[in-house]
Amino acid sequence: MSKLTEDAKGVYVIAVTPFTENGALDLESVDRMVDFYEEAGATGLTILGQLGEAPKLTAEESRLVAERVLKRTDGRLPVVVGVSAPGLAAMRELSETVMGLGAAGVMVAPPWTLKTDDQIFAYYANVAEALGDTPFVLQDYPLTTNVTIAPKVIERIINEVETCVMLKHEDWPGLSKIGALRRSSDAGNTRRISILCGNGGLFLPEEIARGADGAMTGFCYPEMLVGVVREYAAGNPERAHDIFDAYLPLARYEQQQGVGLACRKYVLAKRGVIASPTLRKPGAALSPEDTADVERLLARQTRRLSEIAV
Amino acid sequence: MSKLTEDAKGVYVIAVTPFTENGALDLESVDRMVDFYEEAGATGLTILGQLGEAPKLTAEESRLVAERVLKRTDGRLPVVVGVSAPGLAAMRELSETVMGLGAAGVMVAPPWTLKTDDQIFAYYANVAEALGDTPFVLQDYPLTTNVTIAPKVIERIINEVETCVMLKHEDWPGLSKIGALRRSSDAGNTRRISILCGNGGLFLPEEIARGADGAMTGFCYPEMLVGVVREYAAGNPERAHDIFDAYLPLARYEQQQGVGLACRKYVLAKRGVIASPTLRKPGAALSPEDTADVERLLARQTRRLSEIAV
Amino acid sequence: MSKLTEDAKGVYVIAVTPFTENGALDLESVDRMVDFYEEAGATGLTILGQLGEAPKLTAEESRLVAERVLKRTDGRLPVVVGVSAPGLAAMRELSETVMGLGAAGVMVAPPWTLKTDDQIFAYYANVAEALGDTPFVLQDYPLTTNVTIAPKVIERIINEVETCVMLKHEDWPGLSKIGALRRSSDAGNTRRISILCGNGGLFLPEEIARGADGAMTGFCYPEMLVGVVREYAAGNPERAHDIFDAYLPLARYEQQQGVGLACRKYVLAKRGVIASPTLRKPGAALSPEDTADVERLLARQTRRLSEIAV
Amino acid sequence: MSKLTEDAKGVYVIAVTPFTENGALDLESVDRMVDFYEEAGATGLTILGQLGEAPKLTAEESRLVAERVLKRTDGRLPVVVGVSAPGLAAMRELSETVMGLGAAGVMVAPPWTLKTDDQIFAYYANVAEALGDTPFVLQDYPLTTNVTIAPKVIERIINEVETCVMLKHEDWPGLSKIGALRRSSDAGNTRRISILCGNGGLFLPEEIARGADGAMTGFCYPEMLVGVVREYAAGNPERAHDIFDAYLPLARYEQQQGVGLACRKYVLAKRGVIASPTLRKPGAALSPEDTADVERLLARQTRRLSEIAV
Repeated sequence: MSKLTEDAKGVYVIAVTPFTENGALDLESVDRMVDFYEEAGATGLTILGQLGEAPKLTAEESRLVAERVLKRTDGRLPVVVGVSAPGLAAMRELSETVMGLGAAGVMVAPPWTLKTDDQIFAYYANVAEALGDTPFVLQDYPLTTNVTIAPKVIERIINEVETCVMLKHEDWPGLSKIGALRRSSDAGNTRRISILCGNGGLFLPEEIARGADGAMTGFCYPEMLVGVVREYAAGNPERAHDIFDAYLPLARYEQQQGVGLACRKYVLAKRGVIASPTLRKPGAALSPEDTADVERLLARQTRRLSEIAV
Repeated sequence: MSKLTEDAKGVYVIAVTPFTENGALDLESVDRMVDFYEEAGATGLTILGQLGEAPKLTAEESRLVAERVLKRTDGRLPVVVGVSAPGLAAMRELSETVMGLGAAGVMVAPPWTLKTDDQIFAYYANVAEALGDTPFVLQDYPLTTNVTIAPKVIERIINEVETCVMLKHEDWPGLSKIGALRRSSDAGNTRRISILCGNGGLFLPEEIARGADGAMTGFCYPEMLVGVVREYAAGNPERAHDIFDAYLPLARYEQQQGVGLACRKYVLAKRGVIASPTLRKPGAALSPEDTADVERLLARQTRRLSEIAV
Repeated sequence: MSKLTEDAKGVYVIAVTPFTENGALDLESVDRMVDFYEEAGATGLTILGQLGEAPKLTAEESRLVAERVLKRTDGRLPVVVGVSAPGLAAMRELSETVMGLGAAGVMVAPPWTLKTDDQIFAYYANVAEALGDTPFVLQDYPLTTNVTIAPKVIERIINEVETCVMLKHEDWPGLSKIGALRRSSDAGNTRRISILCGNGGLFLPEEIARGADGAMTGFCYPEMLVGVVREYAAGNPERAHDIFDAYLPLARYEQQQGVGLACRKYVLAKRGVIASPTLRKPGAALSPEDTADVERLLARQTRRLSEIAV
Repeated sequence: MSKLTEDAKGVYVIAVTPFTENGALDLESVDRMVDFYEEAGATGLTILGQLGEAPKLTAEESRLVAERVLKRTDGRLPVVVGVSAPGLAAMRELSETVMGLGAAGVMVAPPWTLKTDDQIFAYYANVAEALGDTPFVLQDYPLTTNVTIAPKVIERIINEVETCVMLKHEDWPGLSKIGALRRSSDAGNTRRISILCGNGGLFLPEEIARGADGAMTGFCYPEMLVGVVREYAAGNPERAHDIFDAYLPLARYEQQQGVGLACRKYVLAKRGVIASPTLRKPGAALSPEDTADVERLLARQTRRLSEIAV
């Protein structure tokens, strides 16, 4: 498998990890899920992230999931693997394992204790040294990491840490950050790396307009992410917004912390992608009121999509 | 003016504070803004909150704004005043001033240092003692306050602090919290207080369905908030969602921290409500790219509203 | 009164605010306290800080305390006033008031929401603009402010904000920070400003050795702070440590958050400095077990001081 | 090896993890260190904690360290192993491994994201379920975990989670918490569990007086911890304080975050316990100024110990 590079673009879907109703790994659903994402137009996959319930897996289970996904994609889709860990030794171990299995790269979020600009830079310099020549994605998600990374710190990492090839951008608000990074690379002050956006795609049209290369996030309708990226690339921003707006009420609902993942799995199970919507413990479940909300949103979404002929 | 009670419902708009281009208070725009909110169907107003740039005002300026708003509403709309302060003495002073001017009640957010359930309860018990018989709104906004308040803590405050008459609900996600509080009051375990929702209205239809009494938040189109509440009350939830969906792309954009307020003031100025979109320093301003985003969203919103005949 | 400058040195005692048993301001104790601190060898005073229970005072009470202290010192001791506030307008108001009364300068801690290096710098640049030509002290106390300020950020503030004349250093650990700042000013890269140290004096000997100019902190035996600074200045570091060690068990106890201030006031009342150890509500009180601890420490301290002939 | 119980008392030393100068595990120093702690009077050992640089070890290295320590102690000293992890699956795996090797119990700190009382309780209920019948220590260290645990939450865990047999108490200030827990168990409201205290022993005499059963912390002179506990148990509190006071200046210095561990290893190497003071990267190192501080404190400590005939 070729490695992740600064040229990556499109939609890397954050994959869920399927479990059976009793909480065991469901590897058959993994196959179906990979096929589903590929057919939906995904450019790549990202596995074993926070929303893949990675911390709930044993090391061996993590290896099994990575192996199954990589076997099923069979080199057609690059796979990025979340390897964030409390220490560099564990991070390096997991990274070496998954790169050996054929992953394209890894993703690293900062530990919550980092504060100053220099601390953040030093952390990623240490990460890069630990990971060797493995390309990595810098995950910038202050809402869950507690770490705010200024654009100039990202620029410094880009300039001094060559194996950093992608920014998973999910600062919020973050549109000005994309603009700042693109101005910097356009002016030749920093290497141009790939910027894929998260936050459930809630700002995807505007992010693409600022210079992002696509999305790396989860949503139970990855066709929204694919459609927005595709139409923007084709020079049809209004069409991109039409697609975006049709899915926005549900995307907004799914972006709730905690219950959002339960919503995502509920819809993926309803769509026949995974066998069960189960989250491994400890994990949220949809209440009857939540389910009613989702069903209403799905019905409205279906009507709206037919109105705009998607 | 009658005081705020547990029966409050509808839409309390979080008012901006208008400034001239050079940063001076613009009291004439205050009059126009009050009229605008009233004509849009607001049930009440909330002033001197975080998004009213309250911390940037001197004590005398705060008094002037409150006085002007209260004179213009002239008792037709109840006015809630944000009085959060580092200490209880300053809070009591401001509260006494504005209640003397005719405010209906005050609103208090918790200081960021509170951690345990008991600390949070004790804080509000102390607040109530300091405020005397002034009714107050508990502002529950963890995203900006850093304080997470469990439903059981709110229930304890409701039960033991009788001057707490309203919850400004903007936990996120927070739908299950509304449900828990309503089940508790339905079962007779707690007093039923008013719950008005914040977060820019981004979950308003679902919040109303769970038992919220309306909205207390800002949005440059308060008619969305009013429309959703009205249609839900009239038994037309699908119509409520139609209205909500039409405004959602802009509401989502305006809900960005910092730049969102600049967006709100930009649109209010464009609509002729306030003379200038200026934020007092230090405050964000819209970049040309931001303005382009907003203009596109406004144009699309206008088209969509005409499609659904709003 | 002359204004605070970069040349300040010695011991600026953080003053308590005396209350009567029922919580009223006790201005007569203010006089006695000022005399006590002066006789103990204080070089200056700092009032209306967090440990002066400033947030519990009304604006008028704050003014009364400042006025009384300034009248009693009568220009013999420079007085620094804490003016930290949620907004710049209130900060400027209080600053103008106390400077008009004869204060030497003001002190500003950063709001807890600041994260990146640039945000911290921008905040102090805005503070300086709001304060005009009033010299100010940068309070660097991450344990209570939640803001970690890197040495390079302090250097930038020193270089670009000329009214910043002093660092109240209470980062922990912070010895390397003092060293970094002194190397920077020794090399001519930054202006040399005054560094006075906090944290209850718990690292004072080592801080002086690294280049600090003294202490700005509270302790119920300011003679410890004065003695350490004096003996270091006289070239007697071992004697400085002898004095420090004798008081350290109590200083450590008093440095506990919350209960520490109750301890300080208990001892100051016992020493006849203030009439009552009362903290205004909400405030901690010593339990019988706490009091027993303090009494044991006092008795041991007395014995130890006589052994080393202090 | 018998398992950890509520009756544990004395001094469980937090062991460092020795590395060679190039950062490799130094298992021969592990043997010497175990002997040293045992000869100093330790009742037990705690390994693979934060100050044992556990996150820097691979899973295999962690196993090697645990195995070596357990072989050397050979059942004479109970060994507690830190198993805090981002997820319960990894925690259970490590726990099973070390219990299989003969550990007496495990220790679990809360993840930084926990906020409310119920969230904290639920976390430990889930931990207990994951760990099965393995006894565990609740680590209460808000300064590094960001989680404040109210006494009533600890009481609830004690009452509902029977495998919680010990509190590693390092809240600060925390004396009142010990008192509250002891009053609760004395009154028969909660099971009496072991309370061993951390924070480098900086409040050990007072903690013992409030009802703590001893210490679980690191300090390069464990004989201080042992001596204080021993003298208190023997009814000689003043003697306990004499010992404490003699070591306090150094204990205070070693309690600095980050550089403190470098100080601890420096002294342990100087005392011949470990071959090298090296911390594995990324880790602090002593500057020449730090070393000078430590040497001065050591020299003064030696003099003081001889004065009091220790």
